[in-house]
Amino acid sequence: RFLWCFFFYIPDVNSFAARTNTCGELRAAHIGQEVTLCGWIQYQRQGLFLVLRDFQGLTQIIIPQDEAHSHVRKLLSNAPVESVVRVTGIVSSRPPGQENLKMPTGDIEVKVETAEVLNFCKKLPFEIKDFIKKSEALRMQYRYLDLRSSQLQHNLRLRSQVVMRMREYLCNHHGFVDVETPTLFKRTPGGAKEFLVPSREVGKFYSLPQSPQQFKQLLMIGGLDRYFQVARCYRDEGSRPDRQPEFTQIDIEMSFVDQAGIQRLIEGLLQYSWPEERGPITTPFPSMTYEEALADYGTDKPDTRFGMKIMDISDTLRRLDIGFVQNVLSYPHSTAKAICIPRGVEIMDVICRPDGSLKSLLTKFLSEEQQSELIQALNMQVDDVVLLAAGDHKRCSALGSLRLESADLLEAAGMVLRDPAALHFLWVVDFPLFLPKEENPSELESAHHPFTAPHPSDTNLLYSDPTKVRSQHYDLVLNGSEIGGGSIRIHNAEQQRFVLEKVLKEDSEVLSHLLEALEFGAPPHGGIALGLDRLISLIVGSPSIRDVIAFPKSFRGRDLMGNAPDYVTPEELEPYHIHVSWPAAETEAKKN
Amino acid sequence: RFLWCFFFYIPDVNSFAARTNTCGELRAAHIGQEVTLCGWIQYQRQGLFLVLRDFQGLTQIIIPQDEAHSHVRKLLSNAPVESVVRVTGIVSSRPPGQENLKMPTGDIEVKVETAEVLNFCKKLPFEIKDFIKKSEALRMQYRYLDLRSSQLQHNLRLRSQVVMRMREYLCNHHGFVDVETPTLFKRTPGGAKEFLVPSREVGKFYSLPQSPQQFKQLLMIGGLDRYFQVARCYRDEGSRPDRQPEFTQIDIEMSFVDQAGIQRLIEGLLQYSWPEERGPITTPFPSMTYEEALADYGTDKPDTRFGMKIMDISDTLRRLDIGFVQNVLSYPHSTAKAICIPRGVEIMDVICRPDGSLKSLLTKFLSEEQQSELIQALNMQVDDVVLLAAGDHKRCSALGSLRLESADLLEAAGMVLRDPAALHFLWVVDFPLFLPKEENPSELESAHHPFTAPHPSDTNLLYSDPTKVRSQHYDLVLNGSEIGGGSIRIHNAEQQRFVLEKVLKEDSEVLSHLLEALEFGAPPHGGIALGLDRLISLIVGSPSIRDVIAFPKSFRGRDLMGNAPDYVTPEELEPYHIHVSWPAAETEAKKN
Repeated sequence: RFLWCFFFYIPDVNSFAARTNTCGELRAAHIGQEVTLCGWIQYQRQGLFLVLRDFQGLTQIIIPQDEAHSHVRKLLSNAPVESVVRVTGIVSSRPPGQENLKMPTGDIEVKVETAEVLNFCKKLPFEIKDFIKKSEALRMQYRYLDLRSSQLQHNLRLRSQVVMRMREYLCNHHGFVDVETPTLFKRTPGGAKEFLVPSREVGKFYSLPQSPQQFKQLLMIGGLDRYFQVARCYRDEGSRPDRQPEFTQIDIEMSFVDQAGIQRLIEGLLQYSWPEERGPITTPFPSMTYEEALADYGTDKPDTRFGMKIMDISDTLRRLDIGFVQNVLSYPHSTAKAICIPRGVEIMDVICRPDGSLKSLLTKFLSEEQQSELIQALNMQVDDVVLLAAGDHKRCSALGSLRLESADLLEAAGMVLRDPAALHFLWVVDFPLFLPKEENPSELESAHHPFTAPHPSDTNLLYSDPTKVRSQHYDLVLNGSEIGGGSIRIHNAEQQRFVLEKVLKEDSEVLSHLLEALEFGAPPHGGIALGLDRLISLIVGSPSIRDVIAFPKSFRGRDLMGNAPDYVTPEELEPYHIHVSWPAAETEAKKN
Repeated sequence: RFLWCFFFYIPDVNSFAARTNTCGELRAAHIGQEVTLCGWIQYQRQGLFLVLRDFQGLTQIIIPQDEAHSHVRKLLSNAPVESVVRVTGIVSSRPPGQENLKMPTGDIEVKVETAEVLNFCKKLPFEIKDFIKKSEALRMQYRYLDLRSSQLQHNLRLRSQVVMRMREYLCNHHGFVDVETPTLFKRTPGGAKEFLVPSREVGKFYSLPQSPQQFKQLLMIGGLDRYFQVARCYRDEGSRPDRQPEFTQIDIEMSFVDQAGIQRLIEGLLQYSWPEERGPITTPFPSMTYEEALADYGTDKPDTRFGMKIMDISDTLRRLDIGFVQNVLSYPHSTAKAICIPRGVEIMDVICRPDGSLKSLLTKFLSEEQQSELIQALNMQVDDVVLLAAGDHKRCSALGSLRLESADLLEAAGMVLRDPAALHFLWVVDFPLFLPKEENPSELESAHHPFTAPHPSDTNLLYSDPTKVRSQHYDLVLNGSEIGGGSIRIHNAEQQRFVLEKVLKEDSEVLSHLLEALEFGAPPHGGIALGLDRLISLIVGSPSIRDVIAFPKSFRGRDLMGNAPDYVTPEELEPYHIHVSWPAAETEAKKN
């Protein structure tokens, strides 16, 4: 059924432009050719030579010293660093011994014949080298200078290529349709994190959606069959670190599919689009239930690149019969859990001594025999540290966090726990469909969103004991970061109405269009969304998503280059029938 | 320099799904195979057969009549039209004589073995056939039903494919980098049509930009070299017909390029991505100056598919010496112009009679001799109609509109003026850089935007007589619709500052980041933006861009399906420090 032909291509990066080559392109094979290069002066030395830079690399340019070229020499000697020039000259081999093996163009240099300064660069307010070490705020303010760095050039180009490969896979190989959905929509119930956009109708607002969730389901009901979109999404979270008010997700939905279908699709997608420099990835990805993840790692996004799993030592501790521990363990759902930090002595002061005794507050409650039983149960080695916790440990999130903290500390102390090249993809499945509300645990809320379908084995429980219902939600985790999540959706109008009205006790009126759509021949469907910014930052090994976004906002949601958000005049607000509620003090101050 | 390999592929539209084939796929070659199809019941007849539909087509399904299959028969007979079913059965040839040549699957039918109703469709509030003829408002409200139509399926799929081809051309063939730019930015000077987004900082607002103009220039200054983005843009224009508050443009910018470079790039782009069904396109596209376009067609986006050009008949009329015409022509810049409408008699009552005399109000001022001179000057044929206009005709926009109106009327009367298959691409160039402000003609405003570079031959005029400066702006016109526009940009900070401060008298402070960026090594650069919605609607021959957008807004900017924009509670406005200015009457009403 396929007619495939694998092909290689080298994009022509010089087409339509006023150059013959880029600054990263010339090799010994070009020697003797006349070339024209355009770029930025990276470095210039005494009117003798300069290093020209563009997005592809660096080329050494030799400035002619003879009288006939005095004009060229003067021009190039006087142009400050970061000025833009165009030079035409002959590719020559470097004098023997002067080749630079570290430079891809290190075999050659270009002897200038003619040159033109296309734009002079004013003196920079800082040295480029200093700049790199300068505060992030300065780099954000002069983002266009930071973008010239090889790191950001690489990140943005890699991002573009990965997305292009994803599109090829989805569109060309599997018939997905790229459909753009609106970003001016209306508030979703409970959409407290949605930006509002005032309209010209008094009192009416659009809302910038957090995802195209409703639209992609409506597209399935509309028979589109397979949809994807590289979708801009919005979330107003104030100042959470490493979140952006606008972000991008690879948004996918298809009809007549089950959970395994979506998982295989995504594995294929990532395998196809994965950049060669990060090595191949192995599929299928392993899978773990939500229960297992919480029990063993204390989180629903386990970093499985290292051990230090959480151990249940309730039975051992019960046997040891320590008063206050016993007390805790007597409550329902109470357990005692532990993680053993190998060579934890290097980072913490709670240890198993070489003589086999424990250095711990616990020792005063434990006999030597009890100590050795504990050491055995935990399989402790010399210099290991064990962290114990007892209580209602359904979620073990404290030990989960300590596990990650400890790993960071161990690595900071020079130990190797996680191979930086390792790629641990993991599906986390069988999430609960509902969770007790934090502010009122007797009420339920959706663990993800109200459109998630119940697990086929648990459908009946929906009507009898909704707290026990597992869902058909799946998360994709990479090296301990959630990079995607999705679900099979409810396609039955009655079931959707029951979930909204009876379980979640929500006003279904705001979703009446979706409920109605489900009644008019909605196919079974499901989908997923991958967080593109996070995915790319993991691929390039950057700690922050700001390094893979061309113009990111600051922690506070500000654009430091253009100064957004900004004040507007009352006249500009008039068409939208709104005005600003200035705090009393300021209103007062204005009056005076 | 290229390693190319042309390839064909058939996307696998059945991968990961619970079907073996689509409803448009089966042919005689499949006879004997067991297949599973999923789709909507398009038509069902007396429990004997049904027609199953999905995005790819229709397949006839034969319902078994034997006792063993009574369950299947009952199930399928009782499922209403538009219900979703899955059937498994054997592909069989249709009985001789019952083949349907109009149907791609007309050679076969599928004899059902097992069937499942995946979702029942409630009785539709209207017949699907009626629905299609129903008001657009109803179709917008039930957009998901309209999306099932073959027309919208075709439009959205074609759009996806055209954009994918554009990406291949830009990204894979020419090394363009797909960069996402922010949509939460700040107000641009004079950005009266920009939506505002309140932030959590009192009195500060983001703005949804009308285009990524500033960002794409900053990317060039950042050394990205070649940028493109399928960019979501926003424009709050109230209720202009066939405009959408959010729309999409193919946004392109590159460094070290001139006007011809961008033009060749776009010609190549359109040629590469043009769908086969609309036939090949010829490049390069012809070019016309702004002056010529206004003189000959009375518009800067001429529809060159037909003649009826505007003729200057000032000299003839001056000779004819008609009192009140003479009077008009005596003013400076006054001209007399005309269009001759071939066989205009069919649509208008002002004619050239078979006997060579004119039926016109003008005749009472003209001798027979003068009449025949006029007929000759205009090259009028029998039954032609001539429209004359005299006055300050620098722009001739009235005759330009009449020319288009007349063409529409002639075609409505059954004449063929414009070949529906014809594709008249046209570059319009040499626009003026500035135009007098409508409200105050002694002041100047940018004809396009303040970043447009002056024509190289006119640079000196910028400082002496800016009204005479032509720009390096170019528009791309297809069949009389503007489908794109762009320019070479100013890359010199001083020139940019002069334009902003001295010519436009604008406060350059709000653009200080861009002005500063130009000082730090900005390369020469230029770009273009293509209006994707309009382009696709021209390709599919649809009169409205709403037919190529999945979820368009109404004329009034409303989403009729989800009911957006909508009211929000005062509590929801609180974090944004705004409140609604209700009109006095409503506030009063609320009090009571």
